[in-house]
Amino acid sequence: MTTTSPDGTATSVPSADDAATAHVDVPALSELLLGRWPELRRTARARAGEAQYHKDESLTPAEHRERTLEQMRQMVAGDDKIAWLAYPERLGGGDQPGANLACFSELVAADPSLQIKSGVQWGLFGAAILHLGTPEQQDRLLPGAMDLTVPGAFAMTETGHGSDVQSIGTTATYDPDTEEFVIDTPFRGAWKDYLGNAAQHATAATVFARLVTNGVDHGVHCFYVPIRETLPDGTAGDFLPGVGGEDDGLKGGLRGIDNGRLHFTGVRVPRADLLARYGSVAADGTYSSPIESPGRRFFTMLGSLVQGRVSLDGSAVNSAKIGLAIAVRYAAERRQFGGPGVDEMVVLDYATHRRRLFPRIAEAYAGHFANERLLDLFDDVFSGEQDTPERREDLETTAAALKSTSTAFALDTLQECREACGGAGFLTENRITSLRADMDVYATFEGDNTVLQQLVARRLVADYGREVKGATRTPAGMARFVVERATDAALHRTGLRRVTQAIADVGDPRRAAGHLRDAETQRELLADRVATMVEEVATAMRPALKAEPAVAARILDENQVALVEAAKAHADLLRWEAFTDAIAEIEDTGTRLVMTWVRDVYGLTVIERNLAWYLLHGRLSDQRARTVTGYVDRLLRRLRPHALDLVDAWGYGPEHLRAKIATGAEAERQDEARAYYAALRASGDAPVSEKSLRASRR
Amino acid sequence: MTTTSPDGTATSVPSADDAATAHVDVPALSELLLGRWPELRRTARARAGEAQYHKDESLTPAEHRERTLEQMRQMVAGDDKIAWLAYPERLGGGDQPGANLACFSELVAADPSLQIKSGVQWGLFGAAILHLGTPEQQDRLLPGAMDLTVPGAFAMTETGHGSDVQSIGTTATYDPDTEEFVIDTPFRGAWKDYLGNAAQHATAATVFARLVTNGVDHGVHCFYVPIRETLPDGTAGDFLPGVGGEDDGLKGGLRGIDNGRLHFTGVRVPRADLLARYGSVAADGTYSSPIESPGRRFFTMLGSLVQGRVSLDGSAVNSAKIGLAIAVRYAAERRQFGGPGVDEMVVLDYATHRRRLFPRIAEAYAGHFANERLLDLFDDVFSGEQDTPERREDLETTAAALKSTSTAFALDTLQECREACGGAGFLTENRITSLRADMDVYATFEGDNTVLQQLVARRLVADYGREVKGATRTPAGMARFVVERATDAALHRTGLRRVTQAIADVGDPRRAAGHLRDAETQRELLADRVATMVEEVATAMRPALKAEPAVAARILDENQVALVEAAKAHADLLRWEAFTDAIAEIEDTGTRLVMTWVRDVYGLTVIERNLAWYLLHGRLSDQRARTVTGYVDRLLRRLRPHALDLVDAWGYGPEHLRAKIATGAEAERQDEARAYYAALRASGDAPVSEKSLRASRR
Repeated sequence: MTTTSPDGTATSVPSADDAATAHVDVPALSELLLGRWPELRRTARARAGEAQYHKDESLTPAEHRERTLEQMRQMVAGDDKIAWLAYPERLGGGDQPGANLACFSELVAADPSLQIKSGVQWGLFGAAILHLGTPEQQDRLLPGAMDLTVPGAFAMTETGHGSDVQSIGTTATYDPDTEEFVIDTPFRGAWKDYLGNAAQHATAATVFARLVTNGVDHGVHCFYVPIRETLPDGTAGDFLPGVGGEDDGLKGGLRGIDNGRLHFTGVRVPRADLLARYGSVAADGTYSSPIESPGRRFFTMLGSLVQGRVSLDGSAVNSAKIGLAIAVRYAAERRQFGGPGVDEMVVLDYATHRRRLFPRIAEAYAGHFANERLLDLFDDVFSGEQDTPERREDLETTAAALKSTSTAFALDTLQECREACGGAGFLTENRITSLRADMDVYATFEGDNTVLQQLVARRLVADYGREVKGATRTPAGMARFVVERATDAALHRTGLRRVTQAIADVGDPRRAAGHLRDAETQRELLADRVATMVEEVATAMRPALKAEPAVAARILDENQVALVEAAKAHADLLRWEAFTDAIAEIEDTGTRLVMTWVRDVYGLTVIERNLAWYLLHGRLSDQRARTVTGYVDRLLRRLRPHALDLVDAWGYGPEHLRAKIATGAEAERQDEARAYYAALRASGDAPVSEKSLRASRR
Repeated sequence: MTTTSPDGTATSVPSADDAATAHVDVPALSELLLGRWPELRRTARARAGEAQYHKDESLTPAEHRERTLEQMRQMVAGDDKIAWLAYPERLGGGDQPGANLACFSELVAADPSLQIKSGVQWGLFGAAILHLGTPEQQDRLLPGAMDLTVPGAFAMTETGHGSDVQSIGTTATYDPDTEEFVIDTPFRGAWKDYLGNAAQHATAATVFARLVTNGVDHGVHCFYVPIRETLPDGTAGDFLPGVGGEDDGLKGGLRGIDNGRLHFTGVRVPRADLLARYGSVAADGTYSSPIESPGRRFFTMLGSLVQGRVSLDGSAVNSAKIGLAIAVRYAAERRQFGGPGVDEMVVLDYATHRRRLFPRIAEAYAGHFANERLLDLFDDVFSGEQDTPERREDLETTAAALKSTSTAFALDTLQECREACGGAGFLTENRITSLRADMDVYATFEGDNTVLQQLVARRLVADYGREVKGATRTPAGMARFVVERATDAALHRTGLRRVTQAIADVGDPRRAAGHLRDAETQRELLADRVATMVEEVATAMRPALKAEPAVAARILDENQVALVEAAKAHADLLRWEAFTDAIAEIEDTGTRLVMTWVRDVYGLTVIERNLAWYLLHGRLSDQRARTVTGYVDRLLRRLRPHALDLVDAWGYGPEHLRAKIATGAEAERQDEARAYYAALRASGDAPVSEKSLRASRR
């Protein structure tokens, strides 16, 4: 609630009621954030806090690679088999696909290299066998992948084709005489590239190649291919005949992973090692598949590997939380700049600092809740409980929307946190630069973010098309649709809606701000933006359907940036909705109040970022638009007393943060300095400042 | 020039005239970009291209540190003394302060560690002696700093005080009995921190400490303090008595520099080693200074060290150019995603890719030209040609405005470039991640960017205050001032100005876009924004002058974010002005045309970013505002054929870019793949795709 100051403007002072009520019940909020599988998540987080799994910054890249593999062996050596949660119970797994990803996303706190190398082994190499293999193949091939007797690479991406898997060049040609597939790399661009485990540790790989049999190219399929001999001590030896490759060398981060390249020359694999769930070849070379359309088959296969994107989303949000927790702790202790006779302020009390950190705290919460919903959706599909084509499509779209948003958010946030910690933020001992370097590649792996956003937008446009088709099937529907669109166009061309708002608000900034505080208003503003953007771009692109290729390309080109923007707006809405739903689950009134402010900060900063759009589309009057920034600033001030609680609720202890500046050391230094000056003043030996001396002489 | 398509909207097709004229004379533009000291810059750039100075990614941090020192020795071993350009001719220098910084900014292309370690030695440690010392001290102390017989640290920053130098805790207390200063570190927070050269190589330091004599604290002064013994082989030995310290350890980048901490316990330095240009102490302890006011004295001393900021500005812009040159070369060869039967497109032909890279190319040009102007200003002041208090103040404000803008720009751009190169961008062999990691700290050293922006804004507000005072000195002036402000408020409260524009433009999007193309319009929009923001914030803050401390703090708090925004807007304007001035110097018509488009992209993307502001302040009608994005997109399409030329003109060869993906390797791979498929099709052995088979069966 806002009160009104004598000059009639709303001020940031919460009402007496609010001020008394507002607080954060940290343990209860922490518990809520543990989500659907609290015990497993707690176990996974505790594991990430164990020193043996922590990134060791002193290692050379070569040592780091070996240690990471060793850590993975430790992870499956004990009784705790949370790395196997997604695997079938009959093989020692837990048949818990959603819980598996929740636990996986905690591992980023230990070492992103460990996380991603685990992800390669159990989430890509193993998951390809699990999702693309038959039960017989699972029984035969999964145990080695699970217990690391077979470290594996996931050989999908090629140097020439990153996110465009459909265009890969590697071939697997069936030879009926020997009942084998012959894997070949036809040219340099078709080398498999950037593969974790491929440079050193993998002895097998799941290789994606175009399946050719009887002169027909059946498109991309996956093959289980041994690539290196296994030495008696269990480590990887030389490449097997026909297999070659090289090390990708140093990378910008994730140096604990041996990324590398692979190529194949006449490598023969038995017919039985085509992972055959979605396509198989009979002894005579006859191809068959349960999915008739090659396009749908391809997307079904790829869709079964969506877990990578889901898990990166949660991990990215967690890395941002770690950065924010470090930066907020430091900022709550660090003092800089005082006036004469004025005590130096804690930097968290600077408006600029609040602006840098608090909206990102809000976005981290939004991202967290959205990821929880994504995990639900994932679990529904992959547990088989609600495995429908519609849910799968929803899952893929949501994963693409959130992964592309959260990985970009994490990088931006970690950079802001590093800068907010000044020079100290640049030191490796304070964690953030190291974490950011590792997270960097999350923005392009499992699909470049720009490509993912276009995928999301295309889905939104297609949905819109279906809706229009439905609406316009009857003459009445058509008429309504046309009228609605015409009305909207008229409204925003004349700014009529804005004028109406302005009249309603006139002379009362409180009413304008109050309007923004309303959840329904926020929802409407965010949802309306997505709907309108999709409609605009769909309408603009419609002529492409019947145009010459060159003209169609031109039309796509003219709308591509808008497509990406629509996808981003969609992700913003998803996160806002997830946040709002989560608030309803909070029982404690004070916590709910604070979290509502946090949600408002999230919603209103999204609106603030896109304010020009709202103005130009007549969705906000000038009057209301002008209150957005001021209202956000007031909310940020209101959140100041709760900042530490809000980052504490994420549940990261010192064993997760591992930053010297987040340990209270700064407060100790500040106290020591203040005590020194106090003692000096008390002693009477303090030198007089020249400045005050001059002033007193005047 | 735009043409009109049948539906009446302006399209991106340049007119026949423009299309024929538009081209980039790369050598001529390169020459122009070499600026005021072309020969020296050429020499410096050639040096940065020599392999002996290149960053070696294979080194351990310890090896990297040693190599960097060795490289610096090589830099001054030969006849080429460009590292000494700023030093007095009588000592072997060039007395060319501006040229020195121009050359320094080229060194970032070799290795940022080498650049910054050089900067510490010759631009901070040496420059402190040069600018804060007397001629006698220069003669005595500079030679060792210049020829590296005395590697030095610049001991200003303390753990407890980063950008707030005025509050440092180290003391230098004069002892008249021995005619010495006694340097002391009173508490842990007063340890000198983050100092390049301090962990290993420095044998002396220029130490900033509060000068205390006869019981009076005269504020921060600089002292020349030996800190380590020099071993017979010329390397640094143990700390001298009373000096202690520790290594800052690993950092997020710049690992070739031995940053460290220093502390002092009763360290005695001779009276003669207070760098005495702005303050000295007589044998009896009497303090004297040519500058009476302690505040002005402090800022004069600090101001004499402005070259750090000036040099970081140019270096940051150069690092962004390197990233962009790599990303554009790769994008011009890389092909991804084609339709069936449609050749894959070069990624630079995607609208999203143009949006990611081209506005940053434009901003790099703007940043380049602005840095040239800054170098002019710097040279004017430091050569003594125009060393007035006003010019110094301008220089300091401009340096703060541009350094804070360009270092943020560089990080953002390098990240975008790395992502635009996909997984390849993450490999160290492709340079960008390594460069970005090194550039990271540029955002906080020589003054945290947020602090610098507030410094800029305070200057702008002070200027505004002076203007108002001038304007309101007479009753007529006062009246005019009040009326002008009232008119403006009325205009933007009613949106009157916007309505006027809308009436003028009605039904003619071309007129609206044409208006934006006009340089005077862009200038007015950018300049008006700065003026208005400054006025708004100045007006809002005026009550703070007469308020209680708590109220004043509150008022500052409420305006701090706006202050920073005003500083950013000021930097945008400076860069636009510098760009526009530079275009006038281009003689070739085609180049001038292309560069005008580039300038328009810069100006209009700044306006686009702040579109809500322009709308809410009645500076743009909805009609005009709606054309901005479309017009920018058209400009980007128009620039597509010139993209490679625009990055080539920066003058970086393969010896500067050093990225495998920027060597033509990708085009080779693409050609090989295309040749393979062409041959396969020609042979008649190509497998038929299942998809086309199914289609033909229907």
